[in-house]
Amino acid sequence: MSTTAFTPDLPALHARLQASAPLVQAITNTVVQQFSANVLLAAGAAPAMIDHEADAAQFAGVADGILINLGTASNHQLLAADAAISVASETGKPWVLDPVSVGVVAFRTIKIRQAAAARPTVVRGNASEIAALAGAGAGGRGVDSTDEVDAVLPAAIRLAQTTGGVVAVSGARDAVVAVEGAQARIARIGGGHALMPKVVGMGCALGALVVAYLAAGRALGGERLAGDWAATVAAHAHFALAGAEAGARALGPGSFQVAFVDALHALPSADLARADVQVGTRAL
Amino acid sequence: MSTTAFTPDLPALHARLQASAPLVQAITNTVVQQFSANVLLAAGAAPAMIDHEADAAQFAGVADGILINLGTASNHQLLAADAAISVASETGKPWVLDPVSVGVVAFRTIKIRQAAAARPTVVRGNASEIAALAGAGAGGRGVDSTDEVDAVLPAAIRLAQTTGGVVAVSGARDAVVAVEGAQARIARIGGGHALMPKVVGMGCALGALVVAYLAAGRALGGERLAGDWAATVAAHAHFALAGAEAGARALGPGSFQVAFVDALHALPSADLARADVQVGTRAL
Amino acid sequence: MSTTAFTPDLPALHARLQASAPLVQAITNTVVQQFSANVLLAAGAAPAMIDHEADAAQFAGVADGILINLGTASNHQLLAADAAISVASETGKPWVLDPVSVGVVAFRTIKIRQAAAARPTVVRGNASEIAALAGAGAGGRGVDSTDEVDAVLPAAIRLAQTTGGVVAVSGARDAVVAVEGAQARIARIGGGHALMPKVVGMGCALGALVVAYLAAGRALGGERLAGDWAATVAAHAHFALAGAEAGARALGPGSFQVAFVDALHALPSADLARADVQVGTRAL
Repeated sequence: MSTTAFTPDLPALHARLQASAPLVQAITNTVVQQFSANVLLAAGAAPAMIDHEADAAQFAGVADGILINLGTASNHQLLAADAAISVASETGKPWVLDPVSVGVVAFRTIKIRQAAAARPTVVRGNASEIAALAGAGAGGRGVDSTDEVDAVLPAAIRLAQTTGGVVAVSGARDAVVAVEGAQARIARIGGGHALMPKVVGMGCALGALVVAYLAAGRALGGERLAGDWAATVAAHAHFALAGAEAGARALGPGSFQVAFVDALHALPSADLARADVQVGTRAL
Repeated sequence: MSTTAFTPDLPALHARLQASAPLVQAITNTVVQQFSANVLLAAGAAPAMIDHEADAAQFAGVADGILINLGTASNHQLLAADAAISVASETGKPWVLDPVSVGVVAFRTIKIRQAAAARPTVVRGNASEIAALAGAGAGGRGVDSTDEVDAVLPAAIRLAQTTGGVVAVSGARDAVVAVEGAQARIARIGGGHALMPKVVGMGCALGALVVAYLAAGRALGGERLAGDWAATVAAHAHFALAGAEAGARALGPGSFQVAFVDALHALPSADLARADVQVGTRAL
Repeated sequence: MSTTAFTPDLPALHARLQASAPLVQAITNTVVQQFSANVLLAAGAAPAMIDHEADAAQFAGVADGILINLGTASNHQLLAADAAISVASETGKPWVLDPVSVGVVAFRTIKIRQAAAARPTVVRGNASEIAALAGAGAGGRGVDSTDEVDAVLPAAIRLAQTTGGVVAVSGARDAVVAVEGAQARIARIGGGHALMPKVVGMGCALGALVVAYLAAGRALGGERLAGDWAATVAAHAHFALAGAEAGARALGPGSFQVAFVDALHALPSADLARADVQVGTRAL
């Protein structure tokens, strides 16, 4: 990977999110609904978990972006997800697919693959999930990740080629990938804290936050794919900074979760410039 | 609004709640179930989230009061809500309707209007929701409120006339309204903290707490509508005091939520007398 | 009850749990999903809340143990529970039944009795629930317990005879019972803190933790029923120690819940040896 002078303007994305308070429709699993909503609120966005099949499409038309996370999806939520994805596809509205446990169980895997075929703006998962969705891994044991980020970068690039969008891999050092022609744009984001995998729903909440940043990024304008990639990087940087801050104050995973929400909320826009973000390109 | 010497005996309501530990059946959205239950427990009530359509009516017969909040209602919860409302209507048991996102999406709006037609003891919502339910507003963008409390007071009064019960509007300075003949009884409750809208489900949990206070108030006896109004004021005062206390200790929305539950639990009954409550009447 | 020299090796069970990170499939109520998952993570296990009827059986085949808690079960979760129980029965995999509110409402009671008839490895409930499931009590008012642990010990023993497994009763001094022939093995676990009943889902999360300890205990080998009993005792001891630790730091139920997760996570294996556990046998 060759490094490049181009760095996304993360503070501007954060400031735009604060100013616009994007409305995020989160069709997400019931384990993490509360935490995801609190993460969105703390970061400056407006969450709405409208997931009834009869209302999902209409609300998708109003929302600034949509999260699809089928972690505990019952049939009504699956119908709602289909409806919301259709609206996103038709309108070009940004949406994120979080492929929780893809490859682990068959029915869910089918549903997640169908969603991925609709070309999500961003796919965000852990290494096992990205590998499984790209057709290159076993899918792990559920929500934990057994593959490392580095090992799945080729799979992430392949997946990004397929969807035409951004692919983000969460791990010790996150990767955010987008492919334009014969070149992959790759960001690696460090920071965070070792307690993060000890709190349920950190990845799921990050997926929700990516939606909010995508909406903010679209409002800033500019080239579509590069902008979506930059917005995804900003969400990861915001998360990593808050994680590091919370880790410095926490006594364990309980107080970490509390301090994390506080830190997400308190972070000044300017601080995003000091995130541990390395960007570069790779010829394919 | 002319002020009046009549002030509800808030400490007595709080003490009665502690002594009786009313059983609250909360048919509520999955985002806020945990927080609502913890708020009820902290305040001295006993929560039960029994929402299966086959059990809802039977449990409604046992519960001391019922909360209906269709924020993420799937079809089985809608059936459970119908059943519980029927029992409440037949038995005269107190119940609260929280019209989350009414007016924002069509199917939900129909369902909430049907529930409102069953004459809830209390309707509690934010300004946008009360306006929409009264037929006077656009419904906001989900759970946040875009109308101010003052602006929707006429709508709240109109809605109270329609339901024959209490209408509560949450905002910077809450309003609790009841109409008897040609006169509206209005309480305004101040306090709370600016972080409250940054925690998901504060309004939803307040709706649950109103149920507990209604049950306590009924146990105290007295004139029905005035008692329900006083109980609703007490719930709002308890919430506002705990919010102010938590705000003084919090570093952000994460620690605010934790401190809020602590403060709800610690509040002595006598402290309710020092809540910022202004009561008065308005001729219609 | 005669006391005996036999004491389960609680530190070894804790250490084994840490080393193996058992995968727990929790089909549990939506009120407590987040907290249960965080408790499992803090204690060293890996939670997965896969509860779709089409995926539940397949995932049960992968999981190290299964929790069935029908506290808010809709029909799809009931189907998932049936499927997972079938897999557990066929494979001999450990599973825990948490009979939330059995006896309180009719439909749920039928479903829980059906699950209990499949002979769960462990039934864990409060005194009212154990009494109701054993056919000896009224079932309380929901999730709180109106019977005392001592009073329901005979019912717990009877239930253990019926299921052939372990029965655990949560209360001020928990009881864990298993019956072999004409002798009941009984452990009583003290500790914990008075704030525990003020946090929703403590019992539900304990049920989830029992699954993790059962899986760890099976990995240690030894006689099946005695091992399952010892593992159940270890889960209760871990919980009680963390509760006491959290209680010493908490200002109320909000900060208690946070400190409890921290304490669960921080507890060294060796500390389990200092839990307040009394074991003995009773001739039947």
